[in-house]
Amino acid sequence: MGEAKLKTGSTSIHLYELARPIWQKQFEHPFVTSLGDGSLPQENFRFYICQDALFLNELTKIFGYATTRSQQLAHMERFGELLLNTIRVEQELHRSYAQRFGMSPEEMLSVEMAPTNYAYTSHLHAVASVGTLPEIITAILPCAWIYAEVGKYFSSQGTPASDHPYRDWLLTYSSDDFEQVGAWLRQVLDESTIHADDMEISRLEKIFITSSRYEWMFWDMAWRQEQWPV
Amino acid sequence: MGEAKLKTGSTSIHLYELARPIWQKQFEHPFVTSLGDGSLPQENFRFYICQDALFLNELTKIFGYATTRSQQLAHMERFGELLLNTIRVEQELHRSYAQRFGMSPEEMLSVEMAPTNYAYTSHLHAVASVGTLPEIITAILPCAWIYAEVGKYFSSQGTPASDHPYRDWLLTYSSDDFEQVGAWLRQVLDESTIHADDMEISRLEKIFITSSRYEWMFWDMAWRQEQWPV
Amino acid sequence: MGEAKLKTGSTSIHLYELARPIWQKQFEHPFVTSLGDGSLPQENFRFYICQDALFLNELTKIFGYATTRSQQLAHMERFGELLLNTIRVEQELHRSYAQRFGMSPEEMLSVEMAPTNYAYTSHLHAVASVGTLPEIITAILPCAWIYAEVGKYFSSQGTPASDHPYRDWLLTYSSDDFEQVGAWLRQVLDESTIHADDMEISRLEKIFITSSRYEWMFWDMAWRQEQWPV
Amino acid sequence: MGEAKLKTGSTSIHLYELARPIWQKQFEHPFVTSLGDGSLPQENFRFYICQDALFLNELTKIFGYATTRSQQLAHMERFGELLLNTIRVEQELHRSYAQRFGMSPEEMLSVEMAPTNYAYTSHLHAVASVGTLPEIITAILPCAWIYAEVGKYFSSQGTPASDHPYRDWLLTYSSDDFEQVGAWLRQVLDESTIHADDMEISRLEKIFITSSRYEWMFWDMAWRQEQWPV
Repeated sequence: MGEAKLKTGSTSIHLYELARPIWQKQFEHPFVTSLGDGSLPQENFRFYICQDALFLNELTKIFGYATTRSQQLAHMERFGELLLNTIRVEQELHRSYAQRFGMSPEEMLSVEMAPTNYAYTSHLHAVASVGTLPEIITAILPCAWIYAEVGKYFSSQGTPASDHPYRDWLLTYSSDDFEQVGAWLRQVLDESTIHADDMEISRLEKIFITSSRYEWMFWDMAWRQEQWPV
Repeated sequence: MGEAKLKTGSTSIHLYELARPIWQKQFEHPFVTSLGDGSLPQENFRFYICQDALFLNELTKIFGYATTRSQQLAHMERFGELLLNTIRVEQELHRSYAQRFGMSPEEMLSVEMAPTNYAYTSHLHAVASVGTLPEIITAILPCAWIYAEVGKYFSSQGTPASDHPYRDWLLTYSSDDFEQVGAWLRQVLDESTIHADDMEISRLEKIFITSSRYEWMFWDMAWRQEQWPV
Repeated sequence: MGEAKLKTGSTSIHLYELARPIWQKQFEHPFVTSLGDGSLPQENFRFYICQDALFLNELTKIFGYATTRSQQLAHMERFGELLLNTIRVEQELHRSYAQRFGMSPEEMLSVEMAPTNYAYTSHLHAVASVGTLPEIITAILPCAWIYAEVGKYFSSQGTPASDHPYRDWLLTYSSDDFEQVGAWLRQVLDESTIHADDMEISRLEKIFITSSRYEWMFWDMAWRQEQWPV
Repeated sequence: MGEAKLKTGSTSIHLYELARPIWQKQFEHPFVTSLGDGSLPQENFRFYICQDALFLNELTKIFGYATTRSQQLAHMERFGELLLNTIRVEQELHRSYAQRFGMSPEEMLSVEMAPTNYAYTSHLHAVASVGTLPEIITAILPCAWIYAEVGKYFSSQGTPASDHPYRDWLLTYSSDDFEQVGAWLRQVLDESTIHADDMEISRLEKIFITSSRYEWMFWDMAWRQEQWPV
C-alpha cells in the first residue's frame, strides 16, 4: 500500500485503479469460476449464503451509521432506503434459501460467523462507528461495486441455462439495481472529497484496499469453508 | 433526581411515574394552552415549526443509531421505518408550513437552532452515539410518548373548529400513529430491561427525566422565541 | 453564524477573530468582574466550583476520545497527560474546596449538573464521540484558551491582595500552564487543518462559536445559580 | 460457542473456564515453545515485535475509550495510567528492538499490519467505540491475562540463560506488573457485572472467546509471517 500517489481524477476512479489488481484476482478464484459454470458443490454455496446473510445483518447497521453522518436530507433518505432494502434482501435469503437448504431462518442466523466474515464486518464497524461519511462510503463501496462487476462478468458469459443450480443468484447480481447503488455511492463520495487533501485520500486508500481484500477473502472463505483454528 | 427507588413494575411505567410531575406542567404552559385554544401568535407557532423541523433532522439520526444497536432483525426494520417516516414528516413540514410562512425549504433548514433545541439534540446525540439500545429508547421515549399525551389532551377538548388556525397540527398529533410509536418503544424497552439492575435503572431515570425536562423547555423556548444570549 | 468567510491565516486565528465579540463580553460579566475584585458572594463561588468539578469530570473523557483519534504517538501521549492532569486538578478541587465549603468529595460529585453545564458537556460529548481530531480540539479549545485570557485579564489588574477571598483561584489561572495547553492545542489544530476546505472550516466555526457561547453562559449560570425550570 | 451455561461464580472465572481450552493450546504452539527454548528464528521474532508495536498503538486507544465509559474517578485515573504506560512500552520497543533490528522507529511504525493483527485490533475498536465498560474490559482482558500466564509458563521452566536470545523479552513478561494489570481488570469487571443477566453474559462470552482466539492466532501469525493473500 506504499504506492499512494497524487490523485488526479475523481476519488472513486483513483481508488478503483489502485484496487484493480485485487479485483481482477476474483475472476480467477475457483469459487467464482465454479459458481459461474455451475460446478460449485452445494455445500460451499450453502456456506456462502449463510455467511452472506450474517454479513448483510451487519451491513444494515453500517447504513444506519451513514444516516447519522449525512449533512443532506436527501442523503439520509437514500441511506435509510438502502438500510431497509438490505434488511429485505436478508429476509428473502432467509426465506428462499433456508427452505432450499432445509434450515429455519433462526438456524441460519445462529450459524457462527467464519473468521474472515467476522474480520470484514469488524473492519466495517471500526470505520463506521466513528468515521466520517466519506470513510464510511469508502468502506462499503467495494462490496456494492464489486458485486455489480461480478454480475457483469457472469452475464458476459451468457444467460445461465434453466437448469443451472445457481441461476437465481446469478440473475439477481446481474440486475441494474446493484449497478445503481454503486453509482450513487461513488457520486456522493466524489462530491464530498473534491477538496480532500493527501492525508485524507491516504486514509481512504487504506480503507478501500482493505475492503477489497476482504471481498476476495470472502470468496476464499466460502471455498475453504473456513473454520476458527481454535 | 435523588428519589430513585426500587423499580416494581415495568421500566416504562416506573419512568412514567417518576416524570409525571414534569409532564403535568406542560398542560399548564401558556404555549400549549394557547396552541389549544388558537390564541397563540403565529410568530410563536412559526418559530416552533422551524425549530421542530431542525429537531426532526437530528431525531432521524437517533433512529439511525438505534438500528446499529439492535439485536433483532424485526427491531432494525422498525427503527429503519421510523427513520424514513421521520424524514417524510420533516419534508412535509418543509413543504406545507414553508409555503404558509413564505419560506423556502432551504430557508427553514438554515434557521439557527435555538439554545434549548441544541441542548436537547446534543443530549440525544451524546446518549445515542455510544449508548445501549435501552438508553437510546429511553432518550427518545418522552418525545414520542408526550406528543401522544398532548394530542389526547387536545382532543379531549373537542374537535378543533374548522377555522382554528392550528387545526391541522392538532389533528396530526391526536392521531393513533403517535400512540403506536410510543407503545412499541415501551414494549422493546420493557422487554430489554426485565433483568436490569439498580445501576442501569438509575442511568435510565436520569436520561428519561432529562428528556422530559427538555420537552417542557422546548415549548417554553418557542413561547419566549429564545435566542442565544451572546 | 452566517458570517463565515474565507479563512486567510491559520485556523486558530480565524476562529479567534470570529469568536472575539463573544469572548469580550466575558470581561464585563458581573460574575467575572466580582470574582476579580473579590466582591462575589461565596455562595456563587461555591456553586461555580461544584459545577466546575463536574465539568472537569466530563472534560477528562473528551481527552480520552482525543487519544483515540490521534495519528501520532506524541499526540496520544500529550492527550494522555492532559487526561491525567485534568483528573488531578479535579481531585485537588475536591480536596481543597470541599474542605473550605464543608463538603465531602462524594457530596461535591453528587451535586446535580445545572442546565448550562449539562448542555455544554453534552455538546462536547456529541462532538467528541464521533468527531475528527480537529473537531474535538476545536470543541475544547475555547475552554483552554479563554481561561488563559481571563487569567491574563486578572493579572493585568495586579496581584490579588493576601486577603482576597479568591486569591488561590486567581493565581492558578494566571499561571503559564494554561497558556501552554492552549498553545499546544492551537498548534495541532493548525497543522491538521492546513488544507481544510470551506465545508470543514464551516463545521469548525460552528463548534468553536458554540463552545465560546457556553463559556460565557457558564459564568452566567453560576451568577444566577441556575436551576432546572422543571 | 453454543456451550453458554448459567454463570455461577464471578464473571472473570466463568469466562476463564470457557476459554481455557483455547488458552491451553498456546503452550503447545511452536512459536511459543521455540520462543521459550530460544530456537525461534530471529526473523520470526522480529516480525512478532514489529506487529506487537502496531498492536500496542491500537491498544492505547482502547484504554482511551475505557476512560470515557468509566463512572468512577479512580477507574478513569487507572485507565489513564494504563494508556500512558502502554505508550511508554511501545516507545521502549521502538527504541530497544529497532536498534537491535537495525530499523528506525519510523520504519517500525510503517510496517504493514498483518491480517490477523488488523482483524484483532478491528475487533477491539468495534467493541470499544460503542461498547459498555464491561464489554471493553472483556475485550482486552485475554491480552493482559494470557501474557501473565505465558510469563508464568516461561518462568516455570527456569530463569533463561544469560545467552538466551530472547532473555529480555521473557523476563519482562514474567514480571508482576502484568499480573497486576490483569488482576485489576478482573476486579472491575466482576464488580460491574454482579447483576448481569444471561443476555449480557452471553455478549461478554462472545467477546472473550473471540479475543482469546485472536491471541492464539497472533502467535500463529508471527510463526507463519502472515501476509495478505491479495
